[in-house]
Amino acid sequence: MRLIIDAMGGDNAPLEIIKGTVDAQQEFGIDFTLVGNEEIIKKISSDNSLDISKMEIINATEVITMDDEADSVLKKKPDSSMAVALRLLSEGKGDGFVSAGNSGAICVGGTLIVKRIKGIKRPGFSPILPHFNGGCFMLMDSGANVETRPEMLLQYALMGSAYMEKVMNVKNPRVALANVGVEEHKGTELQHKAYELLQKADINFIGNVEGRDLPFGACDLVVCDGFTGNLILKTYEGVAKALMGKLKELFTGSFKGKMAAALVMSDLKKMIKEYDYNEYGGAPIMGTSKPVFKAHGSAKAKTFKNAIRLTKEYVEANVIDEISNALK
Amino acid sequence: MRLIIDAMGGDNAPLEIIKGTVDAQQEFGIDFTLVGNEEIIKKISSDNSLDISKMEIINATEVITMDDEADSVLKKKPDSSMAVALRLLSEGKGDGFVSAGNSGAICVGGTLIVKRIKGIKRPGFSPILPHFNGGCFMLMDSGANVETRPEMLLQYALMGSAYMEKVMNVKNPRVALANVGVEEHKGTELQHKAYELLQKADINFIGNVEGRDLPFGACDLVVCDGFTGNLILKTYEGVAKALMGKLKELFTGSFKGKMAAALVMSDLKKMIKEYDYNEYGGAPIMGTSKPVFKAHGSAKAKTFKNAIRLTKEYVEANVIDEISNALK
Repeated sequence: MRLIIDAMGGDNAPLEIIKGTVDAQQEFGIDFTLVGNEEIIKKISSDNSLDISKMEIINATEVITMDDEADSVLKKKPDSSMAVALRLLSEGKGDGFVSAGNSGAICVGGTLIVKRIKGIKRPGFSPILPHFNGGCFMLMDSGANVETRPEMLLQYALMGSAYMEKVMNVKNPRVALANVGVEEHKGTELQHKAYELLQKADINFIGNVEGRDLPFGACDLVVCDGFTGNLILKTYEGVAKALMGKLKELFTGSFKGKMAAALVMSDLKKMIKEYDYNEYGGAPIMGTSKPVFKAHGSAKAKTFKNAIRLTKEYVEANVIDEISNALK
Repeated sequence: MRLIIDAMGGDNAPLEIIKGTVDAQQEFGIDFTLVGNEEIIKKISSDNSLDISKMEIINATEVITMDDEADSVLKKKPDSSMAVALRLLSEGKGDGFVSAGNSGAICVGGTLIVKRIKGIKRPGFSPILPHFNGGCFMLMDSGANVETRPEMLLQYALMGSAYMEKVMNVKNPRVALANVGVEEHKGTELQHKAYELLQKADINFIGNVEGRDLPFGACDLVVCDGFTGNLILKTYEGVAKALMGKLKELFTGSFKGKMAAALVMSDLKKMIKEYDYNEYGGAPIMGTSKPVFKAHGSAKAKTFKNAIRLTKEYVEANVIDEISNALK
């Protein structure tokens, strides 16, 4: 197996990306192609004693930043590390792609360079979020498509179920529709029609789910339009981040706080680890014809290595064949 | 001033509702009408030594439960405490209404029994949420109308600005549009059109806001369609509740945890108080021709008293006249 890495994407690229890839190579024993400015990649690896001698390096002169428009991956920056890497993937020069770069650009590039699975209307951005009962759930779509049709929600459910089952090892994943109430008639026409389609589908559809039940592990996959999903995702992460920040203040802001922290350190670490979305590495772009994976923008080596592990499992589990078959 | 109280609405009705109203009468010196089963109200007050001798009691035989359909306030349960109370308000028998009952029914009853301010298309459900920089913001609409037009978002902005300024004492409130990115072109047609309208309006419009910035006090009022708003609201409350629950476990689950809690007790209490939405009492239904206020369903006496205080300020500040004038 060979994974193609966008070495220049993300807040901590290229150093942490290369580090994570080197670690992954040692741990998983698979092949890598690093795409990015060759000179920089070689220099930074040598400066940091990172052994990339067994990796292929493909030069790319440009970088897509977090501020670039999503479609810059197509015409504006065709020689960016992301665009070059996605073209390599589409040409069969690797089995999967990982980047910590601009999410919007990855979605656009995944859809239009790697192309969609036959029959899939639109790929969806599908982060995995930790919940507070010690597990995780997938939220799809979280912003790839702000305009969504009922059949797209059905496809999200099929794709997400396959991923959760095969990659995240959740048996018979519980699929729910994000809504303003649990009753069948809630929501807009989009939800009414999607509800009907989901009920008839060969998945474990458990009905509507409200925002308040997501953090308690109410389902394994929640499907919704990309506008709502993006606001759920960012509100979820924002509130958790704000409260964790308050907690940090509490435990580091005073001498007594530090003493208290020492007393509960192991439980505290466990709690922080449970809500560490870095454990989950990031989000697949579901619906592309080959595995395209988005690592967290702020990924450091460990998170990036986790993203590589998930992409490897995404490749190995033949999730894309599974999805193709479900569409037949 | 006379406020009309739905004595039977809410998880802790009627006892905590009556208690909160008695406390409010002592503290604020205003008049009250309690609406509900007269026999039960009198017995429970007498059993709990609550002096309701100076309050008017209006009998109502039915109760709208949390499971009732929103429109049951109209035809199915016309003699419910909520329906009777809202009719009294519409007939001018009081200056404002407070209920901890079914939110949907309060929105429907507020809109169709009390009626809308002239020119307002749809009233919006407008909870006040605490953020983690020690303040609060209004989220409108949070579920009264799942289908929303751009002009409705403009009206939400005008109404919410008046409320935040006059009742919550926020000078020149910063209004933002919930969106998937801060750039002007983000979102669907609804957001594009609303953005244009909001820019031209006589309010302090600061542009789009993302979900992740809400917990950090990015704005004083966020406007959005009721579908998205409801999911933001409940995700926000759910994540906070889940994390607070984890924190409670941490501090009570072991002897060391209890010792740690003792060390940081005052800071911990401050943190919990900062994120205590009971402090904010609940949510006005903005756009009704007289003040209609929804207290939290789980309100106990203190929260209900706070809801009464806010409703009193809502009446005194002439917010509804302010809104009428803004629409001219």
